[in-house]
Amino acid sequence: MSQKPSPRLQLRIFLGSSVAIGPGKAELLAAVAETGSISAAGRSMGMSYKKAWYLLDTMNRCFQTPLVEASRGGKGFGGARVTPMGAEVLARYRSIQTRAAIAFADDLEALNALVADEPPEAD
Amino acid sequence: MSQKPSPRLQLRIFLGSSVAIGPGKAELLAAVAETGSISAAGRSMGMSYKKAWYLLDTMNRCFQTPLVEASRGGKGFGGARVTPMGAEVLARYRSIQTRAAIAFADDLEALNALVADEPPEAD
Repeated sequence: MSQKPSPRLQLRIFLGSSVAIGPGKAELLAAVAETGSISAAGRSMGMSYKKAWYLLDTMNRCFQTPLVEASRGGKGFGGARVTPMGAEVLARYRSIQTRAAIAFADDLEALNALVADEPPEAD
Repeated sequence: MSQKPSPRLQLRIFLGSSVAIGPGKAELLAAVAETGSISAAGRSMGMSYKKAWYLLDTMNRCFQTPLVEASRGGKGFGGARVTPMGAEVLARYRSIQTRAAIAFADDLEALNALVADEPPEAD
């Protein structure tokens, strides 16, 4: 019998002339929302602070208002929060992702059925 | 006025435990079908023969039967053709891509509307 993992669909969205949102940036935005910290968010994805900051800064510059900004108050440094704009972008990306997974489930299963079993069997 | 390019959606499909089909492999399969040659197909995408061969070989191994095979007859070497299995995989990928672009057009436009105009204007 086949023990294939379930098929998965990844979406990457290109906006304007320079914005790309895919699984990585969406996960990073969600991680900032969860951790309240760019460094903690990056760490949760095995990503350096520099890399996480760069990705978020790139997104911030491309939208009309920033998606992530330094949080005020508290310890006074290091904190970050996802803005309403960031929450909207993330929610829209995830909504598309969820609906696509449902809409194309049959297509993905049909493609998965064409994949060879692993490990190879002599059936 | 905004002169933003139209938003685009890219799909990458993960099958079994090791197969990924995305825009690049789909384009490569289509190019082999058009050119009848792995080297010409790779060249049309700015890709070396070695890289094109490797990508196709990886796909061939993961499906139940190959997607691309050496074509027989003719000059006797160098030719390649997309098999019925390859045509089916390509057609299914493109069908998902086309339907997703239609299904999510409004969502993509809504996201695109959040992107800053370029070049920046003082309106």
